[in-house]
This record gives sequence, C-alpha cells and structure tokens, in this order.
Amino acid sequence: MNRTYELVILGTGNVAHHLAKAFYDQGCTIKQVYSKTQANADQLAKAVNANPVSEIKALNSNADFYLVALKDDAIPEVAEQISLSNALIAHTSGSWGLDALTNATKRAGIFYPLQTFSKDRAIEMREIPIFIEANEQEDLVQLKHLATLLTPAVYEIDSQVRTYLHLSAVIANNFSNHLWYLAKEELKKANLPYEILQPLLQETLAKSMEQGPYHAQTGPAKRGDESIVKKHLELIENPELKELYHKLSKSIANTYLKE
Amino acid sequence: MNRTYELVILGTGNVAHHLAKAFYDQGCTIKQVYSKTQANADQLAKAVNANPVSEIKALNSNADFYLVALKDDAIPEVAEQISLSNALIAHTSGSWGLDALTNATKRAGIFYPLQTFSKDRAIEMREIPIFIEANEQEDLVQLKHLATLLTPAVYEIDSQVRTYLHLSAVIANNFSNHLWYLAKEELKKANLPYEILQPLLQETLAKSMEQGPYHAQTGPAKRGDESIVKKHLELIENPELKELYHKLSKSIANTYLKE
Repeated sequence: MNRTYELVILGTGNVAHHLAKAFYDQGCTIKQVYSKTQANADQLAKAVNANPVSEIKALNSNADFYLVALKDDAIPEVAEQISLSNALIAHTSGSWGLDALTNATKRAGIFYPLQTFSKDRAIEMREIPIFIEANEQEDLVQLKHLATLLTPAVYEIDSQVRTYLHLSAVIANNFSNHLWYLAKEELKKANLPYEILQPLLQETLAKSMEQGPYHAQTGPAKRGDESIVKKHLELIENPELKELYHKLSKSIANTYLKE
Repeated sequence: MNRTYELVILGTGNVAHHLAKAFYDQGCTIKQVYSKTQANADQLAKAVNANPVSEIKALNSNADFYLVALKDDAIPEVAEQISLSNALIAHTSGSWGLDALTNATKRAGIFYPLQTFSKDRAIEMREIPIFIEANEQEDLVQLKHLATLLTPAVYEIDSQVRTYLHLSAVIANNFSNHLWYLAKEELKKANLPYEILQPLLQETLAKSMEQGPYHAQTGPAKRGDESIVKKHLELIENPELKELYHKLSKSIANTYLKE
C-alpha cells in the first residue's frame, strides 16, 4: 500500500512539470501550482487537477511537502518571499544548499533528481536517482518516503557529497555535450551529419557503464599513437579546440602511463 | 534477392569477429580466417565455417574481398607481406589511408565501420554507419554492395573526409569517456557509485542527438554562473582536471557568448 501526500509545487518549468505529473500519477494530491506567470500556473495546475496561484502569499499552509522546482537563479528570490516556518519545503536544485531556504522555513530540505528534463520527452522516473537532504532527521525520513514513491534509487546525502555530485555531473554531462558540439562542428567541415556518431556514443556509454570508463577507454592518446595526435592537432583550426585536444590527450596518456 | 560474396578475413580481434559473423549471417562464404596465432584463426574460422590460416602466403587468391581487420599498429606489417595485386583488399581502420595497402594490391580499399566492438557485446549492425573508400571507382561500387549487406548507412568518403571523421570520433567519443573516468574519480571521493550518472548521460545523449548539442547544453558555464565554476575549481584537487574544468568552462562560455 502506497502512502500518498498533499503537495504544493512551486514552478512550472521542466522539473516542476515532470515531478508534478509523476506525483499525481502516483496518487498524490497536488494542492497548488505556483508560478508568478498566471498562465503558466493555470496550464500545469490543469494537468494535475490543482489550484493555480501566482502570488506567494496565496500559498496554502498545510500541505505535506512544498517543492521549489524553480530555475537555480530564481530560488533565493522566491525563497525570500516564503514564510511558512512549519512547512517542509524542499528545493530541487543540484547547485543550492539547504541555506537557500533558511528564510522560508525551519524545515528546509533538498529533493534533487539527477536528470535533465524536457517537457516534450517522456522520462522513466523509476530509473532516476533522487538525492535528498534535510535540516531535521524526521524531515529526511519524510523526504525519503516521498522520493521512494518515484524511484528505488534514493540517496541521503550531505552538503559535501552534494558538491561532489554536482561537480561530477558537470564534468561527465555538461562537458561531454560540449565535446559533442565541438565534434559536430568538425563533422560539418566534411559535410557529415552529427547523427553518424549516435551508435558509437551509445555503445561507448553502455560499455563505460558495464566495464567502467577506465577499461572502456580507446583511441590514439590511450594507445600512445603520437603521430595521429600530431596529425589531428595540425588539422584543428579552432585554437580553443586545439588546446582542449592537447590537454585531454595528455590527461588520457598520463592516466594509462601510470599503469 | 541479396548478393553474397566470398570473403577472406584477416584478423580475429573484435572487429574481425563481428564482421565475419555478420557477413556469414548474411549468407556470405568466409573462405579463410587469418591470424598469425593459429589458435585464434582456428577459433573464429570454426564459428563461420571457414578455413583457418596462420601464414600470409597460404591466403587464397580468388576471393571477392579481403578484409584486413587488424589492430591499427599491425596493418602495415601484415600489408607488407601480402602480394595479391589483383585482389580487392580493404582495411577496417579509421586511422590509416589507402596507402597502407599500396604494397599489397593495386585494388586498395577502406571499409570502416564507425563503432566500438567487444566480443561479448551484441551489436545492431544495421544501425552502424560504414565508411568506404577505394582507389578504383569499380571497387568502390563493389565495397558499397558489400557494406549494404550489413547496413543502410553507407558513406563514400575520401581521405580528407576520413580525417575529419576520425578527429570528430576522437573528440566526441574518446574524450567523453575520459571525462566520465574523471567524474567517476570525483564520485569516489563522496562514496557515490558511477552508475548514478547513467540515466542522466543517456538522456543527455538522446537529447543532444534530437535537438543538437548546441541546444542541449546545460550547466553553470552555459548559464554564466561564475560562483559555481569558482566553487568547483576550488574543490578539484587533481591539477590536470582543474585545468580541464577551467578550459572546458571557458570554451562553453565563449560558445554561448557569441549569441
């Protein structure tokens, strides 16, 4: 038997949208959806049978959870307007700590799903890890119950772990995508479509997860093939990419030289 | 009605293994499998009903195609021993040009599947792009027929395009995996398993392919969030990673500043 809860969702962006629908689908009641833009509040509220509100002071005071699923930049500004000192309020950001909510409540929490959400792409919630944190032990237990409604992968973390988690996600995720962008620019010069890389990248990711990235590494820098590295460096025109190619190759070479 | 062919496969590594089996499954005859290690030749030959050979001079002279699916380093050495001037011989390397086979035949070709192969992982051949090249136009047509047995994604390229293709694959694929390795090392410090990144990385890759990597980019450097970048740089102990973080963030920032 699942517990269900009454939630208030602050935000109507991609994270708010996916979380509101996922909790609604799990039988939770979404009491209110807040957005400072009334039309946005109306739209998401309608989808999850909630009341739309566009003023912080209109927030209900007796929901089980308040999820602040706003853009990172908007969190402090909105938090400052909230004054529900006995409400369990958690934000969904990987960048902010509990202190971002200090003014809003005594019962601050974090409910951070490690995923990139888009409104038009379905997400398998049960595969997503959710990272939780709270000032009070009792609230941590509550957040764990809430997260467990969506996924078995719930991690209780502290601020130190959260910082490493966010750093790792930036390195693995944001930086990879930027390399894909740089690779696409090189492919353009040869009139080759970016999509040709998809099967290779998918398989390398699957292999990296199965064997670990250390063992999944391939390529000229790993093999110590300096003639190819040199040839590529001569081919690259973009000075920023040239430097990145050089530094990344050096970092790979150093990793395997240690063997 | 499919054409079928008689092939000789040189090599018994991951690429040789997958190609031999894929052609065999398409109804081709694998006449011989060559490896300088007799036991390796025996093993793959048995799987595709071929004759194993461990001497170059034992190679049959009348197959339709000879695929040199050896490690990059081994190609010139083996090519030097081959003397089948009228045979269509193609290597499967992304790094070498046609000239790697100049001594072996007048009819040199390249048959390069853009994928990372492992013996123990099944690969959906029909999704893999194959890049072909040949000295003679007629041979290019033949290689195209051969490649089309395995996949609809066949690209005729020249050496200039091949170089950009390989460069792009190194940037997108080898370098990403190295970033995943570096991220895993940071996660270790927080006792978090590498696997927590899998749903995020899979979704980002899917999104990057759907929307293009330019639009799929997220993260502090893209947002211009300098306080997070600074915080991460202070956290990183590994000086090589610190420099990579700095350069990659700068490259992302510059990409979106141009807007």
